[in-house]
Amino acid sequence: MDVDIGNALAGVATPGVPRSYLDRLDERVADAHDRIRTGMADDEFGYAALNLPERADPDAIRAAVAPLADADTVLTVGIGGSSLGAATLTDALATEGEAHYLDNVDPAQVSSLLDDLDLESTAVNVVSRSGTTAETLANFLVVREAYEERGVDWTERTLVTTGDSGNLRDLADEHDLPVLAVPDGVPGRFSALSTVGLAPAALLGVDIEGVLAGAREERDALSGSLFETPAYAYGALLYALDGRGAHANVMMPYHESLETYAEWYAQLHAESLGKDGLGQTPVRALGATDQHSQLQLYRAGPNDKLVTFVHARDGPDVPIPSADLDGLDYLAGATLGELRDAEFAATEASLADVGLPSVRVEIERVDAPAVGGLLFGMEAATVLAGELYGVETFVQPAVEWGKEVARGLLRGEEALEETESLRVTRE
Amino acid sequence: MDVDIGNALAGVATPGVPRSYLDRLDERVADAHDRIRTGMADDEFGYAALNLPERADPDAIRAAVAPLADADTVLTVGIGGSSLGAATLTDALATEGEAHYLDNVDPAQVSSLLDDLDLESTAVNVVSRSGTTAETLANFLVVREAYEERGVDWTERTLVTTGDSGNLRDLADEHDLPVLAVPDGVPGRFSALSTVGLAPAALLGVDIEGVLAGAREERDALSGSLFETPAYAYGALLYALDGRGAHANVMMPYHESLETYAEWYAQLHAESLGKDGLGQTPVRALGATDQHSQLQLYRAGPNDKLVTFVHARDGPDVPIPSADLDGLDYLAGATLGELRDAEFAATEASLADVGLPSVRVEIERVDAPAVGGLLFGMEAATVLAGELYGVETFVQPAVEWGKEVARGLLRGEEALEETESLRVTRE
Repeated sequence: MDVDIGNALAGVATPGVPRSYLDRLDERVADAHDRIRTGMADDEFGYAALNLPERADPDAIRAAVAPLADADTVLTVGIGGSSLGAATLTDALATEGEAHYLDNVDPAQVSSLLDDLDLESTAVNVVSRSGTTAETLANFLVVREAYEERGVDWTERTLVTTGDSGNLRDLADEHDLPVLAVPDGVPGRFSALSTVGLAPAALLGVDIEGVLAGAREERDALSGSLFETPAYAYGALLYALDGRGAHANVMMPYHESLETYAEWYAQLHAESLGKDGLGQTPVRALGATDQHSQLQLYRAGPNDKLVTFVHARDGPDVPIPSADLDGLDYLAGATLGELRDAEFAATEASLADVGLPSVRVEIERVDAPAVGGLLFGMEAATVLAGELYGVETFVQPAVEWGKEVARGLLRGEEALEETESLRVTRE
Repeated sequence: MDVDIGNALAGVATPGVPRSYLDRLDERVADAHDRIRTGMADDEFGYAALNLPERADPDAIRAAVAPLADADTVLTVGIGGSSLGAATLTDALATEGEAHYLDNVDPAQVSSLLDDLDLESTAVNVVSRSGTTAETLANFLVVREAYEERGVDWTERTLVTTGDSGNLRDLADEHDLPVLAVPDGVPGRFSALSTVGLAPAALLGVDIEGVLAGAREERDALSGSLFETPAYAYGALLYALDGRGAHANVMMPYHESLETYAEWYAQLHAESLGKDGLGQTPVRALGATDQHSQLQLYRAGPNDKLVTFVHARDGPDVPIPSADLDGLDYLAGATLGELRDAEFAATEASLADVGLPSVRVEIERVDAPAVGGLLFGMEAATVLAGELYGVETFVQPAVEWGKEVARGLLRGEEALEETESLRVTRE
C-alpha cells in the first residue's frame, strides 16, 4: 500500500502535523522499529503476528480444508477476531460459494439463517482459540443440533480452528474432525493472515498464497523511518493527530468489497490502542455512499477527526449507458468507476478545503496481494502506534469485567448493583 | 420506545448531566416543543416529516406497488435517505422475498449483483426526489440496460419514487410506470415513514400499517417536557452530554436485525446536527458482537463518548442444547436470548462502572409498531436536539461543494488544485 499524508500536515489541515514534528518523531519511530524487530525475532506475544506472512502455511491450510471442498456455503461460527479477518478476506476476494458468519448471539438471526441454509452443502467452520468463547460455543451447539435434526452428519462437514487444548480440540479429537491450530502468540484481531482468516477464505476460492505474498512485501518494507515505510507513516500520523485533537479515525474505503475491511480495522484499532484513557474512536464509513450520510458532518462539524480513504487505482469498470437526462450531461460517456473516482477526488478536496485532516491509502486494485498488503500494513501501523502511545497493544483486559458479570448473571449467582435510573416512558 | 438516561447522569457518569441542569434545560425543551408544534402545524420544511405518521397513505402505497407484487426480489436504486430508511425497515421486518440496495457507485458491486439476480422475478425501485442524483441515475441506466440485454421488459418491473417533475417523473410518464410521490417538505433522511421507506417494505411483506401506528403513538406522546417524552429525553441528553465532552455517539442495538437502523441513525444524526462546527460523531455498533471489538476502547479509552443501547424486552428465543463443556457450566439450561441479555446487562454495567455515559432505549420487541416508534422517536429526538443546538436541522449545504467539483472533474472542465502531497511508498 502507498500512503499519502500530505492532507494531514499543518498548513493544509487544522489539526495538522508540522513536517518538523514528523522529522523529530522519526527518531522515536526508529526506536520503535528496533523494539518491533526484536519482538518479531523472539516471536514475542503479539509481535509474532507480524511473522505470519512468512510462517503461515497455505499448503497445510488447503490440505486441512480439502475434505470440505465440495461445500457451496461456508458458515463460520466465531466472534470478534475469530470472524472479522476471514470475513474481510471473503467479502473482498471470494470467487465462489457463499460465506456466512455467526458472529453474534441473536436467536432471531440464528433461526432464520439455519432455516435458509441447505446443510447438506454447508461446511461449518468453528473458531475459538480457548474453546470457551460463550457465544461461539452456544451458536455451535445450536448449529450442530440443526444438522442432527435434519439427519445430516455434522462430523463430515465441520472444520475446527482452535488452540492445543480445550473443548473444541477435544471435540475434534473425539469425532476425527479436520482441525487447524491457532498459532501461538497471535491475538485474535491480528489473526487474519493465519489459519483463522485463511481457512474459510481458501474454501471460497480466495488466492491465499497471493494474500500472503502481498503481506510479505509489506513486511519486507518495514524500516526504521516513517518516510520510507507506508505502514509506519500511517501509524505515526494517527498518533500525532490524536494528540492534536483528531479523536475519531474514520476508515472510509471507496469500494463496497472493502466495507468489512473497515470493520476489521475498527476492531484492530479499538482493542489495540483503546486503553489507559487513550485511543481514537474508530468509525467505519464507506465511499461514495457515506458522502450522502456523513460528509455534511465531516466538512461542517468539528475538526476533531481524521478521515482515512482507501482507494484502488485500477479495477473492473462498467460504462454508463447514454441517455439524455436533464442536468446529467456530465455523465455522458463516463463509466461508473470514473464517477466513483471523481467523487472520491472531490471528497478528498472538499475536506482539505476546510482543513479536516485526511490520509489517502492507495492500492493498485482490490486483489489478493493488495488486500494482504493492506491488512499487514494496518497491523504494522497499529503496532507502531501502540509503541508511540506507550500502551500494551496486544491485550484487552477491559472486556473481562463484563464477561465475569455476564457469567454470574446466567448462573443466578450475581445480581447487578442498581445504578441510577431515570426512565422516561410515554404517558 | 422507553428511554432510561440514569446512567448518563452526573454521579454515575463523567461526563454526566446533573439532574438540576436537566430541570433548567426542560424550559428550553418546552420552547423548542412549541416551535416544533408550530412547524408541524404549518407543514414547514422538515417539520412536515413529523406529520408522516398521520399523512402517509398505506393504501395508496399498496395500490402503487401491486403491479410488482409477484416479484421475489426488490432491488432499490437510491442513495443516502433514498435507501437507508427502506433498508432499515426491510432488514428489521421483511417477512418474504429478498431486498437488495444499490446505494453506492461501484462497478464491481453492480456487475456481481446483476450477474446473481434473476431479473424476470426482480422488481426495480428507483428513488430520487430530484431525478438528478448522479449515482442513482447512473446505476439505474446500467440496470435498465441489463434488463434489455436479457430480453426482460423493465417497464413491467420498475417502480419510480420521485418528485413532481424531473427525469424520473418524465420516464414514468413516458413508459406508464407506477409512480409514487416523495412528499413535500420531507428531507431524505426523514423519509423512512413516507413512500420512500414504505414502498419497498410493503413489497417485502412488512406490516407498514403497523409501522405507522407505532410512529403515531410516539408522535402523540410529544409533550413540552423531556421528562414525559422519551424522544425529547434522548435529544436533550445527547445535546447536554456533547457540551460536556461526549463527542461521539455510539448507537449500539443488541439485535442483528437492527444493524441497519444504526446506519440510518448515523445519517439522521450526522446530516442534521453536523454543522456550524457542531455535532457529535455518530458511530455504528452492534451488540453483542462489538463487545469483542469496541468494548475495550469504550471501557478503557477516553470518556468522550455516549453509548446508546437499543434493546427489546421480548422476542423469539432458541434454547442452547446441553453439552458438558469445560468452563461453560453457566450455559446449562440457558437460551441464546438469555445469554444475549446477560451480556447486554453486563456491558451496560461495565460502562457505568467506569463512568462512561450510556442510555438505554427499550422497545417491547422488534416488530412493526416498535420499529415505527423507534424511527419516529429518533427523528423527533434529532429535531429537538437541532433546536437546542440552534442549527438548521433540515439542510445539508456542506455536501454541495464536493458535488460541484465532481461534476467539473467529469466534464473535464475543472482540475483540482494541488494540495500538499507527502507520499510514502515501499522502497
